[in-house]
Amino acid sequence: MSEKLNVVIWNEYRHEKHDEVCANIYPEGIHGCIKNFLKTDESLDITLAALDDTDQGISPELLEKTDVLLWWGHMAHHEVSDELVERIRQRVYAGKMGLIVLHSGHHSKVFRSIVGTTGNLSWGRDQKEIIWNLMPSHHIAAGIPDHFIIEEEELYCEPFYIPQPDALVFGGWYEDGYIFRSGCCFTRGLGKIFYFQPGHEYCRSFYNPYVQRIIKNAVYWVKPADIGYEIPEGCPMIVTKATDEFNK
Amino acid sequence: MSEKLNVVIWNEYRHEKHDEVCANIYPEGIHGCIKNFLKTDESLDITLAALDDTDQGISPELLEKTDVLLWWGHMAHHEVSDELVERIRQRVYAGKMGLIVLHSGHHSKVFRSIVGTTGNLSWGRDQKEIIWNLMPSHHIAAGIPDHFIIEEEELYCEPFYIPQPDALVFGGWYEDGYIFRSGCCFTRGLGKIFYFQPGHEYCRSFYNPYVQRIIKNAVYWVKPADIGYEIPEGCPMIVTKATDEFNK
Amino acid sequence: MSEKLNVVIWNEYRHEKHDEVCANIYPEGIHGCIKNFLKTDESLDITLAALDDTDQGISPELLEKTDVLLWWGHMAHHEVSDELVERIRQRVYAGKMGLIVLHSGHHSKVFRSIVGTTGNLSWGRDQKEIIWNLMPSHHIAAGIPDHFIIEEEELYCEPFYIPQPDALVFGGWYEDGYIFRSGCCFTRGLGKIFYFQPGHEYCRSFYNPYVQRIIKNAVYWVKPADIGYEIPEGCPMIVTKATDEFNK
Amino acid sequence: MSEKLNVVIWNEYRHEKHDEVCANIYPEGIHGCIKNFLKTDESLDITLAALDDTDQGISPELLEKTDVLLWWGHMAHHEVSDELVERIRQRVYAGKMGLIVLHSGHHSKVFRSIVGTTGNLSWGRDQKEIIWNLMPSHHIAAGIPDHFIIEEEELYCEPFYIPQPDALVFGGWYEDGYIFRSGCCFTRGLGKIFYFQPGHEYCRSFYNPYVQRIIKNAVYWVKPADIGYEIPEGCPMIVTKATDEFNK
Repeated sequence: MSEKLNVVIWNEYRHEKHDEVCANIYPEGIHGCIKNFLKTDESLDITLAALDDTDQGISPELLEKTDVLLWWGHMAHHEVSDELVERIRQRVYAGKMGLIVLHSGHHSKVFRSIVGTTGNLSWGRDQKEIIWNLMPSHHIAAGIPDHFIIEEEELYCEPFYIPQPDALVFGGWYEDGYIFRSGCCFTRGLGKIFYFQPGHEYCRSFYNPYVQRIIKNAVYWVKPADIGYEIPEGCPMIVTKATDEFNK
Repeated sequence: MSEKLNVVIWNEYRHEKHDEVCANIYPEGIHGCIKNFLKTDESLDITLAALDDTDQGISPELLEKTDVLLWWGHMAHHEVSDELVERIRQRVYAGKMGLIVLHSGHHSKVFRSIVGTTGNLSWGRDQKEIIWNLMPSHHIAAGIPDHFIIEEEELYCEPFYIPQPDALVFGGWYEDGYIFRSGCCFTRGLGKIFYFQPGHEYCRSFYNPYVQRIIKNAVYWVKPADIGYEIPEGCPMIVTKATDEFNK
Repeated sequence: MSEKLNVVIWNEYRHEKHDEVCANIYPEGIHGCIKNFLKTDESLDITLAALDDTDQGISPELLEKTDVLLWWGHMAHHEVSDELVERIRQRVYAGKMGLIVLHSGHHSKVFRSIVGTTGNLSWGRDQKEIIWNLMPSHHIAAGIPDHFIIEEEELYCEPFYIPQPDALVFGGWYEDGYIFRSGCCFTRGLGKIFYFQPGHEYCRSFYNPYVQRIIKNAVYWVKPADIGYEIPEGCPMIVTKATDEFNK
Repeated sequence: MSEKLNVVIWNEYRHEKHDEVCANIYPEGIHGCIKNFLKTDESLDITLAALDDTDQGISPELLEKTDVLLWWGHMAHHEVSDELVERIRQRVYAGKMGLIVLHSGHHSKVFRSIVGTTGNLSWGRDQKEIIWNLMPSHHIAAGIPDHFIIEEEELYCEPFYIPQPDALVFGGWYEDGYIFRSGCCFTRGLGKIFYFQPGHEYCRSFYNPYVQRIIKNAVYWVKPADIGYEIPEGCPMIVTKATDEFNK
């Protein structure tokens, strides 16, 4: 790992170019907005990436040095190449990169293939959400009160067809009678994944200071661990006995 | 295990004797109400027990043949003897009895000592609750729709200071903006524990057909397993080598 | 679900046709051997399937009525069509079919894509293994002693690059100094998956009565649950409010 | 939390005073040996405590400023006062202190009451153990190879009657055919607990550099989190509505 943590914020970046409402909320794109609140942390080196960039925003060279990848996609999940998804998947499993999946990314190829899930849920009209802190001692909840309010967010509703998270950190309450597992941690291979519900393209959730703090915390929670040996590729054959090492 | 499943429904049974409102809702006591809907299952042999009975309702002889214990307590948790709690704890850990803890039992000695938790939460006025089915494929959710409504239930609110459940089956939504992990499975030692939120003494939740179905399902989920060997007590010393069994 | 449980035992079925040693151990194929010990249970309706059969052994029609799929593959994982893998994956996630993955199936496309893992491990010479029962109260451990011996099995060695299992039921000890998480339960979507280590094509593990009992137990543990509502496909939009159902 | 992390190493400290063999291995006591390798970290402020000290080594004042407690006990578990155990338990649950339980501490009142377990296991003669790294990306495994050897350690054997750990980081292989879940993480309330198997009073395991590294890592893993609000005591009543906070 380089001294700074290399963070790539990937955004589908279509809504903000084609829809005036979204453009007004996120004039620099959702990824630009996220960069603006992350960049106050000088230990992060932040790169923006978008679907319509060369290499769909993530060249093999860029991926090779990425420590943490944030992913926001929605209407163009199917356009993301299987080959890119597979490279991301392998890097996460190898423990070389952490992954933060935001909002509608629950249905991205990246989330579905890495976590092993359909990511299906129900959804509805934008409304008030209250985020409850279910695991106040988790790193991702550092500095977060027992609950906070998001004045307007898209309804995402249970049942959410995910495997049980390794840690369920936040739960969402919605005006219309619905709840959602809004902040979920998964470990897959040697990599960590955090899914976070807020972030609809028509809402201002990424300006919420608690949403910002959670995403900052998550960058540090998912970042690669200090693994004590070289992880082999594939399934190596063992030709010695561990017991031969006794009394050496 | 006998052919029938021996179920003991333990109830503090004070509110129903001293408060007319509760008595009108549960004239036979909460335990009596639960018995009424469980007894339609002829494979269950059901015993009622109450705090003010001899041996606080659970003699050593009764405990010795109990397969599943349901526990409802509230204002007299401190009156339950430590010795009874310890006997229940050991029987659950030994895998000889499953435990279902209802509503205000979250603060009982039994729940706190067996699960390892303070069981703390916040609470408030009775109101509408919607129970969401987070794990529709769990045995305890068999036959339960994606959600159902409880017209009036006491507010129990997150953060609920429990260890992460082994399975989080149900989540509760409340009118006033709160959520709760309403149906939680724990495994402790060789025993299973299910905690279920509904069941305030001033509400009619135990008449709700889905609440009834969930409790019925839970009886079968927590019941003792078919363990393949005699579980030793304490920490036995091993005087042979497992490797001596090779080529016998 | 039909009255009988429809079980399909899928086998790559190449070793037993091309290698005399394997053929002598499993003259009817590994799948035939498994069928022989499962068929004593009259509530199972068992179908054999092999890679070189029409439709790679599993036509859409067969899959549509399969409740439990057992999977043994090794040298031809890459030949299994992505389309078949995807159909299996969706059926497991939908909770319509359970999956049991045996031995070298840890590296099958089916296991890797459904669970979300590389399935990597190290391996070595055939040797004595002792299987330890880590969770004696789990359904899959019913009737299994605290440990049992497999006189000869292929070495599979940690680190095994899987997500933490929802339940770790068995652990393996090997002569040469290695251990392995030999019996692992996963829940993905509405489906259940069990991975079990024993079953090398050059070893007689499928004749071991405890291995047989574990596989029998697993058939019942992974089988589809009684889900209480129609699971929607994809992500349906909600157009009403749950709160509108109050006082109906 | 003060700037330095306040670490208390509690040791029963009887064997090393009454048995020459133990005294020769650990002339400053097991706690003294642990202090010697922890104190190279200048951000730790380390206090030694023993059963026969005043207040059984841990006065209310000392406990009040302890961030991380290490616990080694064996033959005198029953002498530790219930009142001390309860104070430790409440401090862990409140997220004000992390706990590391070493070796025979599996049967201490502290471990059993906090985690909710009998802590039972089987045990036998000292022998070679190989520790396998099951979760190389866990903080506690930082810098640890895929396996390492302990030339002599007391046999601890499965089944270990603990609840499934939140993370199973290490597994032990023993010469005589046994395995053990040697490194287990638990979360209880807002506190973290790590159990680690090596550390018999007749063995030199605490001089093993990997054992030392694991304990150092664990100090940082269990240390209190940065919780974002004042945790209430008991079960406070809610007298407002969360929904009243909208549009404020």
